[in-house]
Amino acid sequence: MLETRILSYSYDEYVGMVREFHGSEAPGVVIGGFMVDMAVRNLPEGILYDALCETRSCLPDAIQLLTPCTIGNGWLKIIHNGRFALTLYDKQSREGVRVFLDRGKVRYWPEIEAWYFKLKPGKEQSRESIAREIREAADSILSIRHVRVKSQIAEKRHKGGIAVCPECHEAYPVDDGEVCLACQGNALYV
Amino acid sequence: MLETRILSYSYDEYVGMVREFHGSEAPGVVIGGFMVDMAVRNLPEGILYDALCETRSCLPDAIQLLTPCTIGNGWLKIIHNGRFALTLYDKQSREGVRVFLDRGKVRYWPEIEAWYFKLKPGKEQSRESIAREIREAADSILSIRHVRVKSQIAEKRHKGGIAVCPECHEAYPVDDGEVCLACQGNALYV
Repeated sequence: MLETRILSYSYDEYVGMVREFHGSEAPGVVIGGFMVDMAVRNLPEGILYDALCETRSCLPDAIQLLTPCTIGNGWLKIIHNGRFALTLYDKQSREGVRVFLDRGKVRYWPEIEAWYFKLKPGKEQSRESIAREIREAADSILSIRHVRVKSQIAEKRHKGGIAVCPECHEAYPVDDGEVCLACQGNALYV
Repeated sequence: MLETRILSYSYDEYVGMVREFHGSEAPGVVIGGFMVDMAVRNLPEGILYDALCETRSCLPDAIQLLTPCTIGNGWLKIIHNGRFALTLYDKQSREGVRVFLDRGKVRYWPEIEAWYFKLKPGKEQSRESIAREIREAADSILSIRHVRVKSQIAEKRHKGGIAVCPECHEAYPVDDGEVCLACQGNALYV
């Protein structure tokens, strides 16, 4: 039997990285490892790619661990629509691959299905059984399709000039208006 | 002279982590290291904290590298208002500390100021001179204040039930409506 690998890592190495970065062996981040692996293997070699993630839960951490794309460097964008899917695409052509957890395939794995569709209360789910199924299922619960990302979504965000907000006296992007967004009524603090 | 440290790391170790994760020694992520360090040192010991970041540029990566809070585990939230500030706060009381790059203090560091306010075109900025000033300035360009995060901001996001979207046939949070958000006219792909 071939050893289960996630890109250049062994399965156990990857799970260790997930624990360290994410704080626990969350099923979504482990499945996310297989998703990134499938996406990368299906991209042309040597291209510069960006990442798009359709959920803010778990999956962004798999992308940040396994690709050059992070939230802070802007190569990973999260457009949260609640679907468990990620896309890696060529920065220039916007063409790439979308990998998603396929509910038709998940039905053969009762523990993964129960986790994904929340069929059991959290405390009745066994972390060990889910983990065992995820490792065994590997990429067999995933599907992939070729996509082209809309230009408005793929667009690089430009900050424009920086000014000092006359209200809070902090620097902010001048394109946001006369005062910064926080001082436009979006206070974060009591 | 005391060695410059960022939490448990030496400055050079931290810069190495930044290069590895973020892809380059970006000034914003390096300054972010001093910001997280200052915030953590000013929190009561042993509390469980969440993170709030007021910009999506650079700073989230410093938080993800140095704290247990990541985008994927939900302990880091980005509410982008374009200010270079982060807050670490007690999950229960929502009280914590906000650290920000203080423009009054930045003015003594011409390279940092030029980078921060984009006073020079990127190609005229010297990465080395900025890096030298950041290391020397350390936390002297930062200010800190005690804050309490609004409850709506600190609220944990709950996904509720999961259903299968009748249009795309993928799983989605049922609270989003009859069909998933993507099928409600928010297509990401051409």
